[in-house]
Amino acid sequence: VSAAPSAVLIACQQIAPWVTENVENRRRVTRAIVDALASGAGVIVLPELATSGYMFETENEVRAAALPADSPVLADWARLLAGTPAVVVVGFAELGEDGRLYNSAAVVDASGVRGVYRKTHLWNREKLFFTPGDALPPVVDTAVGRIGVLICYDLEFPEMVRYLAAAGADLVAVPTNWPLVPRVSGGLVPEVMIGMASARVNKVAIVCCDRAGRERGQEWNQGTAVIDQFGNIAGERRDAGLLAVPLDLTVSRDKTITEHADALGDRRLDLYGGLVAQEDHR
Amino acid sequence: VSAAPSAVLIACQQIAPWVTENVENRRRVTRAIVDALASGAGVIVLPELATSGYMFETENEVRAAALPADSPVLADWARLLAGTPAVVVVGFAELGEDGRLYNSAAVVDASGVRGVYRKTHLWNREKLFFTPGDALPPVVDTAVGRIGVLICYDLEFPEMVRYLAAAGADLVAVPTNWPLVPRVSGGLVPEVMIGMASARVNKVAIVCCDRAGRERGQEWNQGTAVIDQFGNIAGERRDAGLLAVPLDLTVSRDKTITEHADALGDRRLDLYGGLVAQEDHR
Repeated sequence: VSAAPSAVLIACQQIAPWVTENVENRRRVTRAIVDALASGAGVIVLPELATSGYMFETENEVRAAALPADSPVLADWARLLAGTPAVVVVGFAELGEDGRLYNSAAVVDASGVRGVYRKTHLWNREKLFFTPGDALPPVVDTAVGRIGVLICYDLEFPEMVRYLAAAGADLVAVPTNWPLVPRVSGGLVPEVMIGMASARVNKVAIVCCDRAGRERGQEWNQGTAVIDQFGNIAGERRDAGLLAVPLDLTVSRDKTITEHADALGDRRLDLYGGLVAQEDHR
Repeated sequence: VSAAPSAVLIACQQIAPWVTENVENRRRVTRAIVDALASGAGVIVLPELATSGYMFETENEVRAAALPADSPVLADWARLLAGTPAVVVVGFAELGEDGRLYNSAAVVDASGVRGVYRKTHLWNREKLFFTPGDALPPVVDTAVGRIGVLICYDLEFPEMVRYLAAAGADLVAVPTNWPLVPRVSGGLVPEVMIGMASARVNKVAIVCCDRAGRERGQEWNQGTAVIDQFGNIAGERRDAGLLAVPLDLTVSRDKTITEHADALGDRRLDLYGGLVAQEDHR
C-alpha cells in the first residue's frame, strides 16, 4: 500500500476547448500539460471533454472527435510525464470498442493510461449523444496518492464521492463543463458548494477543473476549485489559465473527526447500505 | 395523497435550554410554541434536546430529564395547536419503553404525537449517554405538507436526506445543537453548507433549528437556517429568538431540473442502490 505524499501540488488548467476544432483542442491539452508540469504539479486536471468541446449539434460532431482509450493521443500525453511522478486526469470523447460514444476521463501517468472512467450520470442533452457508463469509477493508486475520478454532474450524486472515499481515494478529480448558473448563498458556484459538502462529510480532497470560453453562445461558471478535506476552498480560479495549490493528501487517510466520531465509521450501513471502508487502505 | 400548501410559514425558535433545568426547559418550549403560533407559523421547529439541555456530565442527568413519547408534556404541546394546521418538531431526551435513553424528536400536530424519530447517528460524547435509534426517520403527512425529520449529525450523512426526499418529504426538519466551529468558505456555518448541498441535490426544503446560550462553557454556531429547494438560505438567525420564513413546499414535488434531467430520476440505483421514488407521491 502506497503512502500519500504530504504535499502535492494540485493543478487545474481551465482551458477553452472548441467544438469541431479537434486537432487544436488536442494541442491545447498538450500545452496545458507541459505548462503545468513546469510549475511542479503532481496532479494535473483538465476539463470534461477537453478534446472535443461540449456544445454538440449532431452525433457526427461527437464521432469526429472521439478517440479510443488506446489512441496514440493519450499515449503521447503519458510520454510528456516521463521521469516525473505526475498524473494527468483529462476528459475526452471516447469511442468505445463497441462503437458507442462515451463521455470519459482518463488517468494517465508516465507508464501510460492507468484508468478510464465513463460518466455514469449524463447531464441533460448529453443523453442525446452519449451512452452512460455501466461501472463505478476507478481509484487509481499512483505515485502522488490514490486518485478517484468523477465527471461533472456525477458530483451532484453524493453516493459517488461517498463510494470513492470508502474505496480509499485520497483525492477526487472532477473534470467538468459547468454551464453558467446563478451563484448560491455565500457567493458560491453551486456545484463547488456541493463539492465542499462532499469533501467535508467524507474528509476527502476534491479538485474540480471547469472550462473557459464562450462556445456556441454558452458561457461557463469557470468554477475551477481545489477543495480541502474540511470543505474549504484552498484555491479557485475564475478565468482561463492555471490554478496550482499544494494539498496534504495524507489528511484524507484519517477519517476521525473527534475521539468518538468518524466520518465513515459512523455511517449506519445497517440502515442504508454502502461500501465498508477497506481497512488495509488506512 | 395530500397537496403541499404553496406558502407555509416555517418558524424556528433558537432557544437556550439548560442542562438540569428541566421544568424551566419545558416552559421555554411551551412559550416558544405559543409565540411562533401567534406569528402564523405552519411549521415550528425547536432545537435538539430542547427539554433537557445538552452538556451532560452523567447519565443520571439525562435520565432525570427523559420523557416517554406518551408523556403528558408532549400531549400538552399538541393541545396548544388545537384549531390550527400547525406542526411542531421538537427534540427531547426520550425514555424508551425498554428503559433506554434516546436522543429523539417528536412531530406533533393538533391530533397529538404523529411520529417520533430516534437519532441514528450519535455525535461524539452522545455515545456515552444515548442508545442510537434502529430505524430510518418517518415522513409524516400533515396539513402543511410531508415532513421528514433528522437530528443534527444525521445531516452529515447524505444518505439520510436522500432517503427522505425519495420517500416523499417536502420539508426536512432538523433540530440541532451545533457546537461552535470555524466557518467555511463563503462565511457559511459548515453544517448549513452541508444542508444547502443536500437541499439542492434532492430539490427538497430543509430547516435547521440550532440552539443559543453558553452551557457549561460550550458555545454554539447559532446556525438556524431555512434552506430552499435550490440550496439557498431563505432566512437565518444568529442570535436567540424566532426566525419565520415563508416557503413554497410544492417545489419539492417536482424533481425535474431541465427537460432531460431529474434530481432523483437520474440516480444510478443499478450501481449504488437506494430507494425508488414513490410515484404515487408525485
